[in-house]
Amino acid sequence: MSVVVRNVKRVERGVVEAFASLGVATVHEAQRRTGLMAPYMRPIYGGAHIAGSAVTVSVPPGDNWMIHVAVEQCQPGDILVVAPTSACDCGYFGDLLASSLQSRGVLGLIIEAGVRDIRALSEMHFPVWSRYVSAQGTVKATLGSVNVPLVCAGALVNPGDLIVADDDGVCVVPRGQTSIVLASASAREQKESSVRARLAAGELGLDVYEMREALAAKGLTYRDAGD
Amino acid sequence: MSVVVRNVKRVERGVVEAFASLGVATVHEAQRRTGLMAPYMRPIYGGAHIAGSAVTVSVPPGDNWMIHVAVEQCQPGDILVVAPTSACDCGYFGDLLASSLQSRGVLGLIIEAGVRDIRALSEMHFPVWSRYVSAQGTVKATLGSVNVPLVCAGALVNPGDLIVADDDGVCVVPRGQTSIVLASASAREQKESSVRARLAAGELGLDVYEMREALAAKGLTYRDAGD
Amino acid sequence: MSVVVRNVKRVERGVVEAFASLGVATVHEAQRRTGLMAPYMRPIYGGAHIAGSAVTVSVPPGDNWMIHVAVEQCQPGDILVVAPTSACDCGYFGDLLASSLQSRGVLGLIIEAGVRDIRALSEMHFPVWSRYVSAQGTVKATLGSVNVPLVCAGALVNPGDLIVADDDGVCVVPRGQTSIVLASASAREQKESSVRARLAAGELGLDVYEMREALAAKGLTYRDAGD
Amino acid sequence: MSVVVRNVKRVERGVVEAFASLGVATVHEAQRRTGLMAPYMRPIYGGAHIAGSAVTVSVPPGDNWMIHVAVEQCQPGDILVVAPTSACDCGYFGDLLASSLQSRGVLGLIIEAGVRDIRALSEMHFPVWSRYVSAQGTVKATLGSVNVPLVCAGALVNPGDLIVADDDGVCVVPRGQTSIVLASASAREQKESSVRARLAAGELGLDVYEMREALAAKGLTYRDAGD
Amino acid sequence: MSVVVRNVKRVERGVVEAFASLGVATVHEAQRRTGLMAPYMRPIYGGAHIAGSAVTVSVPPGDNWMIHVAVEQCQPGDILVVAPTSACDCGYFGDLLASSLQSRGVLGLIIEAGVRDIRALSEMHFPVWSRYVSAQGTVKATLGSVNVPLVCAGALVNPGDLIVADDDGVCVVPRGQTSIVLASASAREQKESSVRARLAAGELGLDVYEMREALAAKGLTYRDAGD
Amino acid sequence: MSVVVRNVKRVERGVVEAFASLGVATVHEAQRRTGLMAPYMRPIYGGAHIAGSAVTVSVPPGDNWMIHVAVEQCQPGDILVVAPTSACDCGYFGDLLASSLQSRGVLGLIIEAGVRDIRALSEMHFPVWSRYVSAQGTVKATLGSVNVPLVCAGALVNPGDLIVADDDGVCVVPRGQTSIVLASASAREQKESSVRARLAAGELGLDVYEMREALAAKGLTYRDAGD
Repeated sequence: MSVVVRNVKRVERGVVEAFASLGVATVHEAQRRTGLMAPYMRPIYGGAHIAGSAVTVSVPPGDNWMIHVAVEQCQPGDILVVAPTSACDCGYFGDLLASSLQSRGVLGLIIEAGVRDIRALSEMHFPVWSRYVSAQGTVKATLGSVNVPLVCAGALVNPGDLIVADDDGVCVVPRGQTSIVLASASAREQKESSVRARLAAGELGLDVYEMREALAAKGLTYRDAGD
Repeated sequence: MSVVVRNVKRVERGVVEAFASLGVATVHEAQRRTGLMAPYMRPIYGGAHIAGSAVTVSVPPGDNWMIHVAVEQCQPGDILVVAPTSACDCGYFGDLLASSLQSRGVLGLIIEAGVRDIRALSEMHFPVWSRYVSAQGTVKATLGSVNVPLVCAGALVNPGDLIVADDDGVCVVPRGQTSIVLASASAREQKESSVRARLAAGELGLDVYEMREALAAKGLTYRDAGD
Repeated sequence: MSVVVRNVKRVERGVVEAFASLGVATVHEAQRRTGLMAPYMRPIYGGAHIAGSAVTVSVPPGDNWMIHVAVEQCQPGDILVVAPTSACDCGYFGDLLASSLQSRGVLGLIIEAGVRDIRALSEMHFPVWSRYVSAQGTVKATLGSVNVPLVCAGALVNPGDLIVADDDGVCVVPRGQTSIVLASASAREQKESSVRARLAAGELGLDVYEMREALAAKGLTYRDAGD
Repeated sequence: MSVVVRNVKRVERGVVEAFASLGVATVHEAQRRTGLMAPYMRPIYGGAHIAGSAVTVSVPPGDNWMIHVAVEQCQPGDILVVAPTSACDCGYFGDLLASSLQSRGVLGLIIEAGVRDIRALSEMHFPVWSRYVSAQGTVKATLGSVNVPLVCAGALVNPGDLIVADDDGVCVVPRGQTSIVLASASAREQKESSVRARLAAGELGLDVYEMREALAAKGLTYRDAGD
Repeated sequence: MSVVVRNVKRVERGVVEAFASLGVATVHEAQRRTGLMAPYMRPIYGGAHIAGSAVTVSVPPGDNWMIHVAVEQCQPGDILVVAPTSACDCGYFGDLLASSLQSRGVLGLIIEAGVRDIRALSEMHFPVWSRYVSAQGTVKATLGSVNVPLVCAGALVNPGDLIVADDDGVCVVPRGQTSIVLASASAREQKESSVRARLAAGELGLDVYEMREALAAKGLTYRDAGD
Repeated sequence: MSVVVRNVKRVERGVVEAFASLGVATVHEAQRRTGLMAPYMRPIYGGAHIAGSAVTVSVPPGDNWMIHVAVEQCQPGDILVVAPTSACDCGYFGDLLASSLQSRGVLGLIIEAGVRDIRALSEMHFPVWSRYVSAQGTVKATLGSVNVPLVCAGALVNPGDLIVADDDGVCVVPRGQTSIVLASASAREQKESSVRARLAAGELGLDVYEMREALAAKGLTYRDAGD
């Protein structure tokens, strides 16, 4: 039952690169508000923004052996996604593993557990989104699996899915939907940028989005203070 | 029952400006340790410090329609205070709404829920104190109310109350008490600055505050290690 | 039962200084993964790294009187470790106490409760690892103890123990074990640095750590996607 | 600033008694979904259901002195509502205080903190809704206030307000609104009972509530599995 | 994008019935420790134990409209599984919906949100496993989906999957694996019952499971206290 | 470093038996409010009340091997105290281990992690105080230690210490202090029972404890509502 799946299909490089300029909020909206990880997944430093294909790792609590196994399966442009089989705040990952991943061109780590050496990771510019920061080490005694479907922070991740992560969190785009989501996200960005200009110029959202009639229909009333 | 109250009285501009240099801890002490929001309300970036009049927004879980309604009620120097009617971690607010508020002179947002686009908000210097950061979007389907009294993060906020927020958290000063709190806070600041000098010079708080007698009366004993 | 223990033995200065360049993760590993505080203990600003002897303070919930008492017991190179007798998120400590401690050469504060004035503390370069940030003040009405053994964030701390704190968290090294832990940590650092070089050069951990055989013995299997 | 307010107006006895048969969910709905405390307020034993007038107590963290003061202000049919000025899990209340309150005809306790002696309290049939159960004792050193407005578990409570509590939680009804809420709640109960009969008989809510058209208008689609 | 999938395949009745006597812990072990929901999913009353086919409902935060839609899709022996698209503690479900489901032969509810009317539900013997108990009502304004794959409390649930729930929690068995899991669980039960007899008779697990050699090989040492 | 310490000294049987009728709150008070575990340690069923000598087990996250090792070290009247080396919600313990412990006369389990088979444990009358209930199993791959000092739920436990547990929580009494704590607890019980009678008869705590003067000295004021 412990298996390493090799040669998983990735998202096409061109598509990934197009996502790299799209924020998580935009991508999440563009795929109809699905695939977002829970908000307790936070970056260890601000300003990082990555997009890449998921290599998934299912690990036992307190045991990071399979992360070492997973490194070998990584290619440039991948993002490692790690989820423990039960809640665990151990520090599964530090600067040694990051050196290894970085040498293979891996873009970052998403882990629903703990991470350590965060100062070194920041200096290396190796971004991590994790649930915890903890110096607590792990053992290497029990198997898990690499490149199997798993649930990470409430989101289903299949190996090869697209991961986008920035200061707002982490979003998963199923590999088969990347093109359609990209088109939708780009359209959304364009539309938002014109709305942003109008709002910044002082127009009200009530007017820009033509909400007044619907609000009145729902029964919204206005009165002056003191009335 | 869904109502927008217009023309709420604000705190006088002069008073507000005087508060802008007072920290939350000082203000909270000066009003006898009342009005502080729960410590899970954290700024999205460090160093922001604002004071202004509250425009309150009561919103349903997962629905930010009323924030759009509230924008129209905002004036320069206001601070938007948003609380959901039940606990919710959705991202109610992003850079579009911030553009709109900023164009109206609103100073910042206090929200007992989630916020998104936090990198853009930081770059715009639009400060937010929130319970969560989340890219999860909201709908616009159900009414709430603007400028009604509400409880935000454990603190009662009436529309027009003074809000002070900095890296330590968020404090509410009832509009009718701003003058007395201001006087008390200023006196406190002055006194603290002389105490600070003495402590920094090496005097002990035990002596500066004349605590030794009271401690002895309570029965405090001293002994040497190894005795 | 409320007692202040004076003249507690500290860790030798030379040993402490040697620890100052060792990260918490390394120290924690070197003492066989013991002594780590819970990961909810977070620094108020990034990049601080301290090592020193613990002056412990057991305080009642919402009462910081004993911290004032503890200041007098502090020496240059000490670190104050404060734990409430029951969970409390009050802001026990601010810039006045920090001025006092800094004037005595104290290196920082570890507190399983709240801290305030965090912007001032950051500007003073007085590092704090705390469970909460809160402007909520405390009273001075009830005694506690100074330099007694206590549990802080899940770790046992005896007065005079060595504390090491950095961006990864806080670790306690019993005073009697500092030499042996130092030797082990230094050896570990040396070894890691050679491993890091190999990993950064692209060698796999699977090979560097010779894991392949043990993994196979446990039954790890490989298969290609689509098989 | 520490004050005990005497002779607070209560809700009329007849009105209170009418509420005693209404569940918290019904009352909450009847007053337009306001006044509910946070769901972490749980009963120490199942099946209790009380309604009465609030005597409020604002207490410091870890200090239950004011509860003793509040007892004297209680009348038959009252419910004690206790909130600490900052989050605290201490056991403020046990069987001695319950004996005292029960002898005065007080119906129960609502406390956003800890309670102890819960077995004895259960055997006495003195119901408590609390945030924590904890044997941790408190001190009697610092004043608070009795019968002042306060926020308990996210709900604003004014002295004399009606409190309703059952297995679903705790709801506050402002004293001035009890009659109108009672009428609305009774009407709601009646209506629900006829709907319940129809649903229990197998009619669908889709039909009972005539939802099909609205769902279709929103765009709901149906398809068969495998299509 | 809001869809109701009809006529989903269920697990065969005979298989389901065989699971009804198997505990969640046994089932979870039998399927290699997969499919368990997070431990915050707790029953509203003790002693309930159900097994059935999942009808899944994806709902917006604070909106239970789709539960009404889902009722129509339920058959005898089904279990309703509800997950909000973002974290929400509202009370989505009460005794009216339970009456409706019970009249259709539905066995119980699994919901990663709140439930209310828990006393009535207990008296009806309609079991619920939920994350929260809350009287907070919901609206009916926004669509979701019925019988789509979703993640509930960290577990992936496909419509028609087998759900088993008891006092230990909730476990999901993929529909295609029910037979193999059943065989494995039954074998496990049988084996455990013979082990239980030996352990109850005083034999040590160290001997029953023949662990002594492996422990020694790992380096376990024994010493007497005081040595 | 993994060690099993044998023949740890226990508390004398007579002393233990005397504690069996004392509640946790009383014991905790009698030893000056020390030794209480955090309030998240809850019993799996109500009404259990045990006192006995601690056999301690330090376990890795997700690994219960050492519990099997610990069973052999248990004697009649012991209580097993288990703490993981980092936070973990796995179900380390179920009815098989309980059968084993019960056959050796062990009175119950205290575990700062998860437990499963809770219905069977309840039926066996084997009480457990745990942080979580979870069906998630553990592995047997990594050593820990038996009968070493450890921190469990914030309390220091040395092997052989007295443990008292009831519906209010869990308290640790150091072995060397059991006689003095027993005397103090018995005296306290006697005194409380006379106070209870007075309070139940309607006397006010304000008078029984003679608090009025101290309250007035602190500045407590009274006023009538409406003044």
